[in-house]
Amino acid sequence: ERCAKAEERIKTHPYDLEAWTILVREAQSKSIEIARVFYEKLLHQFPNAGRYWRIYVEHEMKNKNYERVEALFQRCLLKVMSIDLWKSYITYVRETKKHLPAFRDKMTQAYEFALGKMGLDIQSFQIWADYLEFLKTMEVSNAYAENQKIVAIRKVYQRAIVLPVINVEQLWKDYNTFEQTTNKNMAKKLIDERNKEFITAKRVSKEFEAITRGLVKGAPALPPHLTNLSQLQLWKRYIEWEKSNPLSTEDTLTLVKRVMFAYEQCLLVMGHHADVWNEAALFLESMSKVLSEKGDMQLGRELSQEAANVYQRAVDGLLKNNMLLYFAFADFEESRMQYEKCHSIYNKLLLRDDVDPTLVYIQYIKFVRRAEGIQSARKVFKKSRNDARSQYHVYVAAALMEYHCSKEKTISIKIFDLGLKKFGSNPDYVLCYIDFLSHLNDDNNTRVLFEKVLNQMPQEKTKQIWSAFLDFETNNGDLASLLKVEQRRNHINLEEYKGHQTALLVDRYKFRDLYPCSTSELRAMGYKIASLNNVIVQQKVNVENTSRQDDFPRPDFNQLIPFRPSSKPVLGVHVVPGGDFPVPPAVAYLMTQIPPPTCFVVFMSIMLYLNQVYSYNGGVLRMAVFNFSKLEYTAKMSITEGNEINHSRGSKRSAAYLENEDSDEEITARPPRHDVYRMRQQRRQG
Amino acid sequence: ERCAKAEERIKTHPYDLEAWTILVREAQSKSIEIARVFYEKLLHQFPNAGRYWRIYVEHEMKNKNYERVEALFQRCLLKVMSIDLWKSYITYVRETKKHLPAFRDKMTQAYEFALGKMGLDIQSFQIWADYLEFLKTMEVSNAYAENQKIVAIRKVYQRAIVLPVINVEQLWKDYNTFEQTTNKNMAKKLIDERNKEFITAKRVSKEFEAITRGLVKGAPALPPHLTNLSQLQLWKRYIEWEKSNPLSTEDTLTLVKRVMFAYEQCLLVMGHHADVWNEAALFLESMSKVLSEKGDMQLGRELSQEAANVYQRAVDGLLKNNMLLYFAFADFEESRMQYEKCHSIYNKLLLRDDVDPTLVYIQYIKFVRRAEGIQSARKVFKKSRNDARSQYHVYVAAALMEYHCSKEKTISIKIFDLGLKKFGSNPDYVLCYIDFLSHLNDDNNTRVLFEKVLNQMPQEKTKQIWSAFLDFETNNGDLASLLKVEQRRNHINLEEYKGHQTALLVDRYKFRDLYPCSTSELRAMGYKIASLNNVIVQQKVNVENTSRQDDFPRPDFNQLIPFRPSSKPVLGVHVVPGGDFPVPPAVAYLMTQIPPPTCFVVFMSIMLYLNQVYSYNGGVLRMAVFNFSKLEYTAKMSITEGNEINHSRGSKRSAAYLENEDSDEEITARPPRHDVYRMRQQRRQG
Repeated sequence: ERCAKAEERIKTHPYDLEAWTILVREAQSKSIEIARVFYEKLLHQFPNAGRYWRIYVEHEMKNKNYERVEALFQRCLLKVMSIDLWKSYITYVRETKKHLPAFRDKMTQAYEFALGKMGLDIQSFQIWADYLEFLKTMEVSNAYAENQKIVAIRKVYQRAIVLPVINVEQLWKDYNTFEQTTNKNMAKKLIDERNKEFITAKRVSKEFEAITRGLVKGAPALPPHLTNLSQLQLWKRYIEWEKSNPLSTEDTLTLVKRVMFAYEQCLLVMGHHADVWNEAALFLESMSKVLSEKGDMQLGRELSQEAANVYQRAVDGLLKNNMLLYFAFADFEESRMQYEKCHSIYNKLLLRDDVDPTLVYIQYIKFVRRAEGIQSARKVFKKSRNDARSQYHVYVAAALMEYHCSKEKTISIKIFDLGLKKFGSNPDYVLCYIDFLSHLNDDNNTRVLFEKVLNQMPQEKTKQIWSAFLDFETNNGDLASLLKVEQRRNHINLEEYKGHQTALLVDRYKFRDLYPCSTSELRAMGYKIASLNNVIVQQKVNVENTSRQDDFPRPDFNQLIPFRPSSKPVLGVHVVPGGDFPVPPAVAYLMTQIPPPTCFVVFMSIMLYLNQVYSYNGGVLRMAVFNFSKLEYTAKMSITEGNEINHSRGSKRSAAYLENEDSDEEITARPPRHDVYRMRQQRRQG
Repeated sequence: ERCAKAEERIKTHPYDLEAWTILVREAQSKSIEIARVFYEKLLHQFPNAGRYWRIYVEHEMKNKNYERVEALFQRCLLKVMSIDLWKSYITYVRETKKHLPAFRDKMTQAYEFALGKMGLDIQSFQIWADYLEFLKTMEVSNAYAENQKIVAIRKVYQRAIVLPVINVEQLWKDYNTFEQTTNKNMAKKLIDERNKEFITAKRVSKEFEAITRGLVKGAPALPPHLTNLSQLQLWKRYIEWEKSNPLSTEDTLTLVKRVMFAYEQCLLVMGHHADVWNEAALFLESMSKVLSEKGDMQLGRELSQEAANVYQRAVDGLLKNNMLLYFAFADFEESRMQYEKCHSIYNKLLLRDDVDPTLVYIQYIKFVRRAEGIQSARKVFKKSRNDARSQYHVYVAAALMEYHCSKEKTISIKIFDLGLKKFGSNPDYVLCYIDFLSHLNDDNNTRVLFEKVLNQMPQEKTKQIWSAFLDFETNNGDLASLLKVEQRRNHINLEEYKGHQTALLVDRYKFRDLYPCSTSELRAMGYKIASLNNVIVQQKVNVENTSRQDDFPRPDFNQLIPFRPSSKPVLGVHVVPGGDFPVPPAVAYLMTQIPPPTCFVVFMSIMLYLNQVYSYNGGVLRMAVFNFSKLEYTAKMSITEGNEINHSRGSKRSAAYLENEDSDEEITARPPRHDVYRMRQQRRQG
């Protein structure tokens, strides 16, 4: 039944990790045949979550479905660079291939594969150590093979001890021992050769540890509105640190690999964030330029292609609806003169039916104009006109392009007129046209346009048009024509404007951000209804149109009480008639803190204290601040058997909360761990 | 000491009625010599408050300073049409002139004066009744005089019984009696003649009573941000009702008088509201037109002059800083071709040093252009340039006027260039110039302007300019020049833009209100910092510049905690580390409600109840609603000596609050009137 509820929750909140966790636990206890369906669903939602892949794999392994395990590893290993997942993989190979004749080769391959991908990870020590252990325990039959073995082990050591990973000191110590036991004479020379690099690696490993402290690596990727943005900042700090080249390597490729490893790690958790993808691609592009300038054209081209791959992965994966990345991708390909690719990017985005194509057409038209000239651009504009989903913006963009780029005033006007047929009743479109015409200083045609539009548009939409008309006459006409327009406006929109005669007058006198009265005066005369806040509100609404934030948590607006201004606010005046209030967190806290009956004297003193705090301070009202720690302190002082734990509980909990968001799920639901009252009760019974 | 605090409060909050009330009470108990200074200060702040005038007058009367009383009446009676004040005046004349030989004439004059001004008031019954009583008790020496007396009384009756005032029925009854006792034969005819008008008056008086019910007439006028706006709505409803001509009179002048009486009453309380003044003037103007059309040119002119007087009174009085009314006044005079008067209005406003003259100059220039032509307008623009207080807007307005009205493109550019010398580092000004130039489609000069401005402006201000430049290149240039501008921008503003590379990219792709990602995505990448909310924030800030709302109460923003989105919010997660919280009103209330020690069992049951309410409901979190009335009820059930009063207290208080805002001043400061604990203590001691 708990699971049914969780199922319900993920239907409306597909990223509700708590609900998923309940279901994962449930699935783990079921047979693999049943659980498999769930795991596939889980990984469809969180394709990069190493934690979930591992659970799936381990469930299959428990059932010895090795073929399925290998298929799973094939699906995830290269995509999900999670150290724990890779460690599972090593374990899997070690456990299942043990009895095969080719075990040694298989195992070596597995280690090399894992270290090639994950060797840079700060937590990779164990894999390195295991690999070395594995190599050391290999049985050899002759001296030649023994020598081969030593060379192989040395190579691995030498690769490992220059890496800034946790416990690199241990590797160094082991390496020293290894060389000394192998050949005392050579040891010093070999060790000295690597010492400097090891010192650097050791120093950098400390920095690395510090910079990645606090990063929650296992967390499944969540969309931006559910992301803990401070985590994102931590990730970016880590990436910046890698970009600063802390190892001071002169090999650009090493630097690129390390930075890209950081980006890949980050993308596992922040894969819904377009900026991370974009910045990864930009980084590759800039390094490609650096290499090309150094003369390494081949590697330069490869990195440039790698940048394109990053964009491609993003728009093929989690961000398949993110226009920004498509546009950035297209611009990148445009800068590489890959015009065919640009066309395919724009067209791919146009095929998606969950994306408003308006902005896509606009960018597409601009691209084609730049790449192929105005004639081709007009063709794309034609295509956009035939797309029923296009909004008015394409007409505006096309018309302005003709005016600004090809300087074809007449064509612009034709396009605007064309749009008027379709969007003549859309005030936003009409205002664009009006703005364009009035800037051309063509008074007559502007007036004609005003009259035409006001005739054909439903009256309830004409508010802004009338304002624009008024504005136009204020600037261009005489008082009589101005008053005439004003009168016509006031008569036509009688219902909406009724009782706001003076508020309407404000439009006549305002100039840009200057208003003829103060904000409170404007509010009092109802001006906000007419247009002041319109500008603000409109902006907000329009932006929200482009968003898909249905599962964004919102406060319960039904509890809102209208704000009543008063020159000297008094606490407690905002009492709703019914007296119904959600309990504020502070009350909840207070309830767990109030001492038991024997301490009631203390409680009375708290009451007196509150009374003091609340006492109305004569003139200026002081926002009374209720200091819980002080209250708790007073309480403890009077309880003879006061316990230390209780005192520090509050701060401990909030600290824990700040560190790990997952752990505080039920902070209010659970009874307090150290409940003074219960403890005393138990003591008495005992 | 209470008074000293009140003095302190009115220094910072000059409209704090509570503080003034304390001081008024104090003054009333002092000698008139000392109080006089205070009264003058009081009436300087509230020149239209009948209540305060009356207190002042009565204090002087108590001290028999009759000359001063008359001087006071001369100052206030005609300005302050408060029925109570006028009743005081009648009382004063009756009391003090009693022994004079000319008492009868003086008294008659006083009554006629009062009824001429206040006879329309719904509360004027008593004055009418007293007047009739006075006339009836007049002693006469002969039959001729007796007859004269009867005629006089009849005239007054006939004036009164057609008025919709409270108790008009009583007047009618008295009149019937009067006629019947005077002359039985004539009575029926005389009464029948007036019956229809009385019936109307009676019916309308009921409507009048209903429509003015709820109006708080005595209240001193407060500025808009402190006004109870629902009162303003009630006043406007009353005025609209009078405009609808409920008496169905055919005499336009009677209608005008009644409506203007309503406006005057309203202005006593709402005199700080520009819309009331403006609408009063507009009403007079429209009636003036009606009368002129009917052919009564003389009365038409008079009403038009009356409209001008309304504006004049407003700008000479409470609204001497309200630009809107000056502008409306000037436009009104302009429409009457009183150009000299217009000049003097604008110039008067320009002399005020607490008003930003920028908008004044802009309107002045527009007026002069309309009335006298472009040459004179240029002179005013010159004057505005020499005024150090003028902001950049005058240059923009003047330049656009040259472009749109006189079609002088070259002069426009010259003006913009002139302004650039003074406001070259003001991004708002520069953006206006850029907008103008780019609409002219002069790409080269636009680019020159961009480069010039970006060179001379401090870097921290160039954000919007760079955005505009980018916008310009997006529309007009090729990808290479676009990328070049973008790169220059990103390099120059390194500090501010750092870490927001992708957010900056959004500017490249947005088009009007279309954005390439959702709002939450924009937020997550820090776009709000770059420009999204800028538009909104900027609007708000600019509007606030023009306001003088320093004494507007604001919440304590220091207590704000940043919002952390979470798909499933849990109560109590917003705990600040320090644990400091202002006590919410609900806690304060709880503190007064918790029962004494003997009832602790009850308290425990409350705790259990709370625990239940709080219990985490499996899946969806229910905002726990804390029902205080229920809690109180549980408490009462368990207290054996429960008292009825306690139970109804909460609801009574909030009801009282809703009815009368003044009475709840100290709702939280005062201890509860019926404190269960104290009562019990007293009972025990007794």
